[in-house]
Amino acid sequence: MHLTTGLSPMPCLTTDAAGVYVISVTPFADDGRLDLASADRLVEFYLERGADGLTLLGMMGEAPKLTRDESIAFVARILESVAGRVPVVVGVSGSGYASMRELTEAVMERGAAGVMVAPPPHLRSDEQILGYFAGVAEAVGAGTPFVLQDFPLSTGVVLSAAVIAQIARAHSNCVMLKHEDWPGLAKISALRQAEGRGDMPRISILTGNGGVFLPEELARGADGAMTGFGFPEMMVDVLRAHRDGEADYARDLFDAYLPLARYEQQPGLGLAVRKYVLAQRGAMASAALRAPGPRLSRDDIEDIECLLARQARRLRELEH
Amino acid sequence: MHLTTGLSPMPCLTTDAAGVYVISVTPFADDGRLDLASADRLVEFYLERGADGLTLLGMMGEAPKLTRDESIAFVARILESVAGRVPVVVGVSGSGYASMRELTEAVMERGAAGVMVAPPPHLRSDEQILGYFAGVAEAVGAGTPFVLQDFPLSTGVVLSAAVIAQIARAHSNCVMLKHEDWPGLAKISALRQAEGRGDMPRISILTGNGGVFLPEELARGADGAMTGFGFPEMMVDVLRAHRDGEADYARDLFDAYLPLARYEQQPGLGLAVRKYVLAQRGAMASAALRAPGPRLSRDDIEDIECLLARQARRLRELEH
Amino acid sequence: MHLTTGLSPMPCLTTDAAGVYVISVTPFADDGRLDLASADRLVEFYLERGADGLTLLGMMGEAPKLTRDESIAFVARILESVAGRVPVVVGVSGSGYASMRELTEAVMERGAAGVMVAPPPHLRSDEQILGYFAGVAEAVGAGTPFVLQDFPLSTGVVLSAAVIAQIARAHSNCVMLKHEDWPGLAKISALRQAEGRGDMPRISILTGNGGVFLPEELARGADGAMTGFGFPEMMVDVLRAHRDGEADYARDLFDAYLPLARYEQQPGLGLAVRKYVLAQRGAMASAALRAPGPRLSRDDIEDIECLLARQARRLRELEH
Amino acid sequence: MHLTTGLSPMPCLTTDAAGVYVISVTPFADDGRLDLASADRLVEFYLERGADGLTLLGMMGEAPKLTRDESIAFVARILESVAGRVPVVVGVSGSGYASMRELTEAVMERGAAGVMVAPPPHLRSDEQILGYFAGVAEAVGAGTPFVLQDFPLSTGVVLSAAVIAQIARAHSNCVMLKHEDWPGLAKISALRQAEGRGDMPRISILTGNGGVFLPEELARGADGAMTGFGFPEMMVDVLRAHRDGEADYARDLFDAYLPLARYEQQPGLGLAVRKYVLAQRGAMASAALRAPGPRLSRDDIEDIECLLARQARRLRELEH
Repeated sequence: MHLTTGLSPMPCLTTDAAGVYVISVTPFADDGRLDLASADRLVEFYLERGADGLTLLGMMGEAPKLTRDESIAFVARILESVAGRVPVVVGVSGSGYASMRELTEAVMERGAAGVMVAPPPHLRSDEQILGYFAGVAEAVGAGTPFVLQDFPLSTGVVLSAAVIAQIARAHSNCVMLKHEDWPGLAKISALRQAEGRGDMPRISILTGNGGVFLPEELARGADGAMTGFGFPEMMVDVLRAHRDGEADYARDLFDAYLPLARYEQQPGLGLAVRKYVLAQRGAMASAALRAPGPRLSRDDIEDIECLLARQARRLRELEH
Repeated sequence: MHLTTGLSPMPCLTTDAAGVYVISVTPFADDGRLDLASADRLVEFYLERGADGLTLLGMMGEAPKLTRDESIAFVARILESVAGRVPVVVGVSGSGYASMRELTEAVMERGAAGVMVAPPPHLRSDEQILGYFAGVAEAVGAGTPFVLQDFPLSTGVVLSAAVIAQIARAHSNCVMLKHEDWPGLAKISALRQAEGRGDMPRISILTGNGGVFLPEELARGADGAMTGFGFPEMMVDVLRAHRDGEADYARDLFDAYLPLARYEQQPGLGLAVRKYVLAQRGAMASAALRAPGPRLSRDDIEDIECLLARQARRLRELEH
Repeated sequence: MHLTTGLSPMPCLTTDAAGVYVISVTPFADDGRLDLASADRLVEFYLERGADGLTLLGMMGEAPKLTRDESIAFVARILESVAGRVPVVVGVSGSGYASMRELTEAVMERGAAGVMVAPPPHLRSDEQILGYFAGVAEAVGAGTPFVLQDFPLSTGVVLSAAVIAQIARAHSNCVMLKHEDWPGLAKISALRQAEGRGDMPRISILTGNGGVFLPEELARGADGAMTGFGFPEMMVDVLRAHRDGEADYARDLFDAYLPLARYEQQPGLGLAVRKYVLAQRGAMASAALRAPGPRLSRDDIEDIECLLARQARRLRELEH
Repeated sequence: MHLTTGLSPMPCLTTDAAGVYVISVTPFADDGRLDLASADRLVEFYLERGADGLTLLGMMGEAPKLTRDESIAFVARILESVAGRVPVVVGVSGSGYASMRELTEAVMERGAAGVMVAPPPHLRSDEQILGYFAGVAEAVGAGTPFVLQDFPLSTGVVLSAAVIAQIARAHSNCVMLKHEDWPGLAKISALRQAEGRGDMPRISILTGNGGVFLPEELARGADGAMTGFGFPEMMVDVLRAHRDGEADYARDLFDAYLPLARYEQQPGLGLAVRKYVLAQRGAMASAALRAPGPRLSRDDIEDIECLLARQARRLRELEH
């Protein structure tokens, strides 16, 4: 549904993209080395749980900790593992246009479906934001679909609905908004209304925030989620129930996962929580973050184990 | 337990303060005027639900929107209504020392139990923070207990456990930490350990964040919560179950309220959600925020009503 | 020239305002008390040196350190001393609309010519900025002229020329831009061009930055300066020479004062430098800042005395 | 004097480093390509004017706009041109430790004398800063001297004198402070006093800010300057006069250059001014900045030409 498959067998990101794009973690060995073997396991883990796409080198992908060569090696390995089964989006934020262009070319020629760009923290006025993304649209190339990442809590940059609409109008390769205003439900409504009025082309809207506002986001017109969470099946199942018109069941499922999802949303520590859960579930060999990064305390692990046990119990209750 | 009752009948905040201190909203009429009549209703609402204390003019109290005279009038009215039944803490942040001293004197002589101060946003280094709070300790007066408010998400100021310990050591009138790092569980542990080592005097730690990390915070040694939420009985009941050793039941209750508590934790919109709930529950006449402030859309209200209905159902299930 | 004198003898700020509006310091005694007697001396000092207007409670006026009553008392005293000889603008930034309205009414009824408002630090998108100033225009009242203060280095808020034009179009009581982008010469040009194209009404532009870009700002179309500096005659004389077409002499004068003006432009310490110079020149009794504020070291004072001696020598050379 | 020349002919940065280390621009062709031919001309230009060292890829070196390979190619070319005549420091800020280690190794093995690191913008508490630089000291390697760059106006990170002393104590490879607090004269004094008390090892202190506080910085104990300015001979000559005890002549020279130096200190536009001046002086082929970057307007160029003419005239006057 979200693939354009013309002459090429490669999935390409379009404005119709929908479903659950899992923000992948980047696996490291305990000594901090990139663990490419676990990359394969991660792919199978995510796809078995129903991922419609993967996103690499996002903010929860520890991208700034990788060298350029490591970034490319990791993306290449994931793309090989995925082998075209789902589209793969790659984050290319956080560096000048030259490095952005270089990384974009490297991943697109290896089969990525598109790239994702967040605004750098110094942008303030609408004029600055529009100027920056004009440069992005050119740097990634007119033929490369890009995702506009809107994450004010992390970047400090505020993208109004009006500015997003202007970017979408100006650059046809802006095909998707990764919506991570917190939660910014009104922004989703405003964008869908702007589309309805013809003020902007339709773009895909996938939401972030670890999924903790997913039911409300879907109700406002989001096409799905692009986020991580140790249990990606939550997003997949909630989305399926939503599409099937079973709103109440969607919320029952959501509520069952919410205590853990909330715990995973802690700034700083959250990624360590997520990696712990993924490693426990066998998705990768080690829960290690590359330095600098937090480590879980014994108390943290007790919290998580308690949440996991309660979540499992609640899910069993819902099955009946 | 949290009262010092010597010669004076006025409750005074001490390092033993514990329980649930509700961050009170400030009620306005639909036209934006301060609604003092609703202040009385609010007091009864909060006390009936088990509040151990009240906190006025906090960040969720729209304090910067009030004139000085309105601030004093509101505090005076609440103090009259409370009539010494529980301690009342008053936020005096956000202005120079002269205004802070003036407001502190005005509320303490009317019977407040203490004041609360958050660091202003420009503070960076430990040296700057320590210097600022030395001025605070003097401005509020050595005889006035004060609460150190640690809310980095809002202030941008990072208070390490070491700095908090230094402030507590240096100023005996610093009797409480309002802990609102998000969630900063490790900070609670670090402070309790510092106390255990004798590196700092014992202070009360009440936690914020709308209560959405309450079970974990209590497990780390928090003495209770100082936060708002349209259902303050959640914090009261969770705390009671925790003290009674019924950790699992505490979490069951917590989980039942979590979907709404999460929805109320939206930056910006959250206060409008809280006021809507409080007005619906009869705690005050109008849900209005004074300008500038967000308004709920029809979609927002639908979300809330759905969450309220599901919460009521879940609570009924737990009763059985 | 910059006065509208209809039925009322009070000067009122208009879009034709020009010349040098000196940002007045607020004098304190050594013990931190407001020194109203020095307020009278300051007025005579500034007017004797050619000030075309005065601005009180600006960022260099230690406004946040004053209580409301002190603010009003200081403004009232200055207005009495000035007695209508020049227009007096009063800063009312930094608080909610209710306090802004209250202070505005208090100073306008005592004879202020207008008020000045800087955007609060949390504003980011154009939409947020426009919304905020719509509230300002209403809070100060349609009949009260206001100055838009653009000082990104201090506020962190970026006002593009387009946004300033929108504010000027939307609110006819926005009569002046206090331009303190650093130095933002292009913004002056852009605004004058927008006026020329009819995209915005003409507004007065007075520049800040302690005068250290004054020659270039005048060349781009500024109407004068609104800033402090221990030697306000620098701005007055440079402006006069500029108007007389003696650009080179204007720069000679400017260059003579620049080493000290630069030294006074230090963030934090600069105000202590300015107050030291003013007290040395007899403009007020004490150089003290109210706490919290920096104190000059012996080294700082040596620097200043050296700069003063060299400046005096250079000015004598220029006289010949 | 600032070289350690043991078995190796390569200059190595030590705590005795002194003099003028020029922050080199990075030359681009008009079409944005790296202009390595101009790199050679730049080296000769800087050395002929008396540079005691060069610093590459600083904040004014457009480092974030270069790819990794371009960075290495540029450094390599400069090192070849310099051929050991002066030490060359390379900025390696702004990326994770892995990229920092990689770039450090690449430039050190080609003959760089040391590297420079600024704190990333998210650091707040002393604890966070100390933790970060512990990682830096390890990432660059114990054998690699590093410069701690303190530039709060750009990074938003405040390094107190106490924290700098702690870093210097903890990491013997921290050999220099690039001091660019604005102007932070008191910090220089505090550090020299801490050295005197034995609270920290002696480190070199070179100052930034485009040289606009150089006389005062030298008086406080700075060892020289590490900054750019289109006329590096200003720093060289002021420093020489200062060392020769001709303080007044040092200030005469300084004052002659100050109007242009001030104009070059404009945030954003300043680098375009500097490159214009350097290109006019024949130091490189094009004044172009790589996108995104500002362009000078005709008005800007008029300003600069006027400043250049007046500066030349004033310098001629001083010769007599």
